[in-house]
Amino acid sequence: MPIVRIDIWKGRPREQKDTLIRNVTDAVVKSVGCPEQAVEVLLYEIDKSDWATGGICHSEQVPDKGPSLPKT
Amino acid sequence: MPIVRIDIWKGRPREQKDTLIRNVTDAVVKSVGCPEQAVEVLLYEIDKSDWATGGICHSEQVPDKGPSLPKT
Amino acid sequence: MPIVRIDIWKGRPREQKDTLIRNVTDAVVKSVGCPEQAVEVLLYEIDKSDWATGGICHSEQVPDKGPSLPKT
Amino acid sequence: MPIVRIDIWKGRPREQKDTLIRNVTDAVVKSVGCPEQAVEVLLYEIDKSDWATGGICHSEQVPDKGPSLPKT
Amino acid sequence: MPIVRIDIWKGRPREQKDTLIRNVTDAVVKSVGCPEQAVEVLLYEIDKSDWATGGICHSEQVPDKGPSLPKT
Amino acid sequence: MPIVRIDIWKGRPREQKDTLIRNVTDAVVKSVGCPEQAVEVLLYEIDKSDWATGGICHSEQVPDKGPSLPKT
Repeated sequence: MPIVRIDIWKGRPREQKDTLIRNVTDAVVKSVGCPEQAVEVLLYEIDKSDWATGGICHSEQVPDKGPSLPKT
Repeated sequence: MPIVRIDIWKGRPREQKDTLIRNVTDAVVKSVGCPEQAVEVLLYEIDKSDWATGGICHSEQVPDKGPSLPKT
Repeated sequence: MPIVRIDIWKGRPREQKDTLIRNVTDAVVKSVGCPEQAVEVLLYEIDKSDWATGGICHSEQVPDKGPSLPKT
Repeated sequence: MPIVRIDIWKGRPREQKDTLIRNVTDAVVKSVGCPEQAVEVLLYEIDKSDWATGGICHSEQVPDKGPSLPKT
Repeated sequence: MPIVRIDIWKGRPREQKDTLIRNVTDAVVKSVGCPEQAVEVLLYEIDKSDWATGGICHSEQVPDKGPSLPKT
Repeated sequence: MPIVRIDIWKGRPREQKDTLIRNVTDAVVKSVGCPEQAVEVLLYEIDKSDWATGGICHSEQVPDKGPSLPKT
């Protein structure tokens, strides 16, 4: 009964999330040999400004669009 | 000091969530014998389209039904 | 499909954990109105020395047995 | 490669969250001796009404503003 | 920077866990289009007796070996 | 009431974990302005072989001691 929880950036397109769920489910089934119905996948959408590596928010490291603006 | 985290579908009515919190807290106190103040409960609301069983999102398996009713 | 994850101190007796699982499951079913089979409960056993409130480990705040020994 | 996940009340000001991320990252680096780039911090914003201690939601225990209104 | 946390039964063979990690990593990369190095996978091994569906521990539902012994 | 959960490699020395708990608690208090008693810290010890970046377990990337032995 594997439960898979995935933290991802908020705002990814619907199709990408559906694909992610499908592919990860398949990967678990193939690896563990459990029935497909036994796999749960939950996506936790995290705002880029609430997720940091090395103390720097991803919203600054990987701005969504346009030029990277310095934080004032 | 039990900490209880519950993943639930987003959009459940306020009273249902209050009841859930109250009942789960009582269940923990009764089972473990700790003071009520020692129990923390956190609800994580997950969109049905971000939660899948067997690779199929719950938004497809259990559509919300009917038009969106205004919250009173 | 509520998923309930509970952090508890490591080492609680088997019967207490069974009771906890049973009571919490019942509490969720009663509160949310879902079928019993839809409720998953996972216990995460945390060593008292890996869990702190106010910066003090629970192993110091609530020693398992005997007098509280000063940490050397 | 420590991963730090912090549950906090939703709605804290941006600067406070940035400061929290920075200070916790520094605390981990100083304590564990890993490179700064190895530390991930994720903030999970939880609505006060979805977080309870002793069965009472934080939205009732610590209302955001104005006098504490009784729940009707 | 997806972070994938998977709850699995304790005691699966090493090769199965390695395969799971590899396949899930590949599935995420393929779905989200991020660099492989950006994917973290953590396995949380949960004892079957600490994991229940419908209030019944998996240790009773799916005993490890031999006949299912009644709990005394 | 911030709750801080930290995934770390299993086997770090006791003093390092105590220091981590103390420093992170202080960092949260200083950043958020809450009372020290409101901060909970939980360490989740993860075996290096259950934690992977880019599909490669940390037990292979950062062997504990001695020469890195090829996995058979």
